[in-house]
Amino acid sequence: MTAAPLLFAERTSVEQVELGNELAPRFDAAGLLPAIVVDAASSQILMLGQMNPDALERTIVTRQAHFWSRSRQALWRKGEHSGFTQTVERMLVDDDQDAVILLVRVEGPGSCHVGFRSCFYREVDLDSHMRPSRLLRTETEPAFDAAAVYAGLPNPTKL
Amino acid sequence: MTAAPLLFAERTSVEQVELGNELAPRFDAAGLLPAIVVDAASSQILMLGQMNPDALERTIVTRQAHFWSRSRQALWRKGEHSGFTQTVERMLVDDDQDAVILLVRVEGPGSCHVGFRSCFYREVDLDSHMRPSRLLRTETEPAFDAAAVYAGLPNPTKL
Repeated sequence: MTAAPLLFAERTSVEQVELGNELAPRFDAAGLLPAIVVDAASSQILMLGQMNPDALERTIVTRQAHFWSRSRQALWRKGEHSGFTQTVERMLVDDDQDAVILLVRVEGPGSCHVGFRSCFYREVDLDSHMRPSRLLRTETEPAFDAAAVYAGLPNPTKL
Repeated sequence: MTAAPLLFAERTSVEQVELGNELAPRFDAAGLLPAIVVDAASSQILMLGQMNPDALERTIVTRQAHFWSRSRQALWRKGEHSGFTQTVERMLVDDDQDAVILLVRVEGPGSCHVGFRSCFYREVDLDSHMRPSRLLRTETEPAFDAAAVYAGLPNPTKL
């Protein structure tokens, strides 16, 4: 999109970045900014996505969550394949403006490519002294049939 | 710390990573993994930190949140200067194990170096068509006097 230089302010001082009222995002060495996605209705954290400037701009302008897929090296509108879109109701930004939170309204049963409601469906068993550390399921049943919903698409998980 | 190779499993297959019960984290090209920190009592998202393998291991073993400071290029135990420590009650991990959530008990009034309770004390005004995008305060008053608490320390915000 062409409006990005207008949508984001230049970063000119620490005070402007931390206490100002202009969006002046900072992208990391890879050109990305992490976006924490929260279900606005339940307050559950659904996923952590990465945004390049284009993804952040499209998200603000369209209110549809967009990300940069590192595994596919492509811009990605959440739900473009599954139909499980995320409409942004609110977007928060942190002190140094290198991370955002999206409070979203989710279409469909889940946001995780494995088929769970949230990508965070396991927790580390901090009481266990087993090595390696053990994971426990917090969502026991998938929310949808990922193999059907994402049929024909490569799995984004990389080793 | 020396136990890291034992604490984390090697990543051997997509199925193991997504559906297994072993912690097998993936660090990005910079050797880091983002950690979303949530106040366990209020469910408020407080900050987004970055962990290298050492920080993740120390967090699990000690249950005190540790991060890697990119601005200082140093391991950092949250609260080591301010006293505002974060004790980890639960740790969740995502589908491809490249992000975690820490549910923490916070000592003190806040977790943000600017002096607010949460680092996410502003939101983007999505209803405004002003350019650049405008930010609105969600926390109007600081929670503590950051200049006093962090006296003598460099500001971690980079332009």
